This record gives sequence, C-alpha cells and structure tokens, in this order.
Amino acid sequence: MIHLVIGGARSGKSSFAERQARESGLPVTYVATGEARDDEMSARIAHHRERRPTAWRTVEEPLMLADALVREAAAERCLLVDCLTLWLANAMFAKREDETDKLLAILPKLPGHVITVSNEVGWGIVPENALARRFRDEQGRLNQRIAAIADRVTLVAAGLPLTLKI
Amino acid sequence: MIHLVIGGARSGKSSFAERQARESGLPVTYVATGEARDDEMSARIAHHRERRPTAWRTVEEPLMLADALVREAAAERCLLVDCLTLWLANAMFAKREDETDKLLAILPKLPGHVITVSNEVGWGIVPENALARRFRDEQGRLNQRIAAIADRVTLVAAGLPLTLKI
Amino acid sequence: MIHLVIGGARSGKSSFAERQARESGLPVTYVATGEARDDEMSARIAHHRERRPTAWRTVEEPLMLADALVREAAAERCLLVDCLTLWLANAMFAKREDETDKLLAILPKLPGHVITVSNEVGWGIVPENALARRFRDEQGRLNQRIAAIADRVTLVAAGLPLTLKI
Repeated sequence: MIHLVIGGARSGKSSFAERQARESGLPVTYVATGEARDDEMSARIAHHRERRPTAWRTVEEPLMLADALVREAAAERCLLVDCLTLWLANAMFAKREDETDKLLAILPKLPGHVITVSNEVGWGIVPENALARRFRDEQGRLNQRIAAIADRVTLVAAGLPLTLKI
Repeated sequence: MIHLVIGGARSGKSSFAERQARESGLPVTYVATGEARDDEMSARIAHHRERRPTAWRTVEEPLMLADALVREAAAERCLLVDCLTLWLANAMFAKREDETDKLLAILPKLPGHVITVSNEVGWGIVPENALARRFRDEQGRLNQRIAAIADRVTLVAAGLPLTLKI
Repeated sequence: MIHLVIGGARSGKSSFAERQARESGLPVTYVATGEARDDEMSARIAHHRERRPTAWRTVEEPLMLADALVREAAAERCLLVDCLTLWLANAMFAKREDETDKLLAILPKLPGHVITVSNEVGWGIVPENALARRFRDEQGRLNQRIAAIADRVTLVAAGLPLTLKI
C-alpha cells in the first residue's frame, strides 16, 4: 500500500502522514531524508523528531532512498518517508537523478505500508533562478509519477486532507 | 461559528467570504487589517471597499486584532476579518508575535459569526529571502491552528470553493 | 461547453486536458499559445508536441486568441487551448490587455467544446518584482472570470483531478 501525501510548506502534511502511520497499527520506520546543513534545517529536524513516538525506528538516508526502502520494508511494517522533496534536492545536487528511476521501480514491489511525503512547489510565479525552475519541474514530475502508482493520494492544506485518489 | 477561508492571491477568497457574510443574514462588521502604505496597497483597499455593501460597519485594525474582535463581536453579528495575512505581516514587522496567541485564545470564545480570510503562501519554491521563509512558516502554522479550531474551512481557487471542513 | 483546467507548473494539467479532448470523441484543434523564444521553451513545446495525436490539427496563436477561436470553433469540434498563462504573458508584454475582454466576450458564444488550460500562480510568497506581482494579479482575475462562465472547472495536482465546478 503506497500513500502519497502532498502539500505546501507548513501545510501540516508531515503531521497528517505521521497520524496515518500511527493509525496503521503497524510498527513504524521513519525514513528521514533531510540533512542538518545549517541551523534552520537543524531546528526543523529537531522539531520533527520531538513530535515522533519514541517507539518508532528512525533511519536517515539523504540519497540512496531506494536501497534504504528495500532494506527496511516488511509485510507487517509501515515506512514513513519524510520527505521526497529534500531527497530530490539531494539527488539533483549530487547529480544522481538516476535515483528517481530506481525509486519508481522498487516502490510498487515493496511489502507492507509505505507513506511518502512530498511538497507542492509549482503554484507560484515562475522562479527567476534556472536551478529553481528545473527543481520545480522535477518535483512536479516526481509527484505525478508517484501519484500514478500510489494507492492513495492526499493533498493537505491548513492541516486538513483532500483526497485525490483512494 | 468560525469560518476560515483560505486561498492564493487573486483566488476570489475575499469575494467568497463577503458572500458568506451577506448570506449569514446578520449585520456585518468588516474588520480591515491592511494599511495603505503605498499606492499599490491603496488601490487594493479602495477596490475592496467599493465592493462592500454600504450598510456594513467598517473597523480598521492592523495589529491589535484580538482586542478589536472582542470589542466588536456580538451574538447576532457577523465579523468578517480580511485578512489574517496582512495582519500577520504587521505583527511580525512590529515584533508582536504574541498577538497570534491572543487571537487563538479569544477566537473560540467569541459570540456570533466570525469569518476570517487568509492566504496560502507555501506552494512555491523555497524563497531565497530568510524573512520570506519565516513568514511563510508562520503563515502556514497560523492557518493550521485556526483551521483546527474553526467550524468550517473553505479553500478557494478561481473563485470556486472546495470544502476542507464542515 | 467550456472546460477550464487549472493547476500548478508540472501538475499534469496539460496531460489531463489532452485526455479530456481525446475522450470528447470529437476532432481536435490544438491551439498553442507558446512561442519558442529560448531553448527551455523550445524543449517544452517539443515535449508537448510529441505527446499529441498526429490526427490533431495544430494552430499557433500567441496573441490574437479570440480571433483564432472564432475562426476554429465548430459545433462538432473540440478546441484545446494550451495555455492561457503564456497567452496572458504575451498580451501583457505586447500591452494588449484588451485581448482579455475580447476572449471573455466570445468564449460563451463559441460552438462545440472548448478546453482551456491555465496556471495557478498565486499560492506563493508575494513576488519582489512588481511585474511579477501584476502578472499574478491578472492571472488570478482571468482564472476567476473564465471559471465564472465555464461549465466545468477542474483543479489538477500530481496528475489527479479535483472538480471545482461541474
């Protein structure tokens, strides 16, 4: 079961995804893709961490996400990947866009539950920065591709869910 | 009854909120939070003003919103706050973020109808400007917190409503 | 029958609109408004072109859209306009904003099916650039005005449709 949770920044999408993980009734592995490269990011990571149940297993994988998911997935386990946006930024920065195809190839074959969180980044004015334009193209395409293979897709705004696919 | 109306810029969220206020059948107090600091803003305020029924009472309060709402609310009255985004910007500029907690504390206790309009600002690329990043974080959190205590939440796009909570 | 399809960049709105055109069962005229002014734009146009059925007629009209639609529309034909955002940018650049009123005036009178694709651009932080602010205002107003006369309005996210009006 693949569940894609999308939304803007500070939309409550992570909290919603965490609630879904808890309500799965399964043991949860939290797959963190963010790296604490600066103070702002460290604060954000710490904020997310203190919200998570201590019983959850945490795995940090900024880049080789497909491998990590294959390693961690199990029939009676829920993986929560937060988030695909930081991971995509890491992959583009490392020029490892091939990781995207790897992820798309293994996702439908994973046992158990997989909840993935991703940002919507294309609802503003065209960015002046060429790299930002490329990132929003890649992010939009990634969200479309994951949505196409997902069993459920939920859009979150102001902490509230809109079901796009069920 | 608290109704949160959210949407992007020029989404028709103010028109939608004004229609809700008219349809409440109650006398309406329009609480304007915008200040005419430049020509662009003056034009926007004038545009909003000429659209409003002349029977509506108008109160201008750029900062001390909680106090204004306590003063104006009544069992048989509809308050329309337009908008929380300008108010939040004013509060952050004046380093009066404590106004947010004040607002959240009094909102559920107000008599009558309260309709609040707020912007969605987190659906684009991460802003390069640190203040803009902080603003979109605060705006997103504020929308989540108000949505959590609201009785109704409506997302408006192209002038059309999507119900998030009812 | 007017159908407005809106969404962010890389949301899958063009693919969705193309599917609607195919499923209309009518012969399709694709009205392209984009101009290949740079490599990025050329690549995007080529990408869209190779996805379209070869049986479709293609008309390119970056500016005089109302005239083109009047010329091409027919009772047993589906016009697919992709997209209003590039067209609006062209009209603003050419200082031909009057084209907007012309479009709004003829749209409800056209015979056959008309599917129009347009971007949502107002869900981010206020742009620092004054022209960008004006563009997002005009785009938002255009989407509202077309939505008001459309028979169907669909919001697309991650390739999936949310019905706003039917």
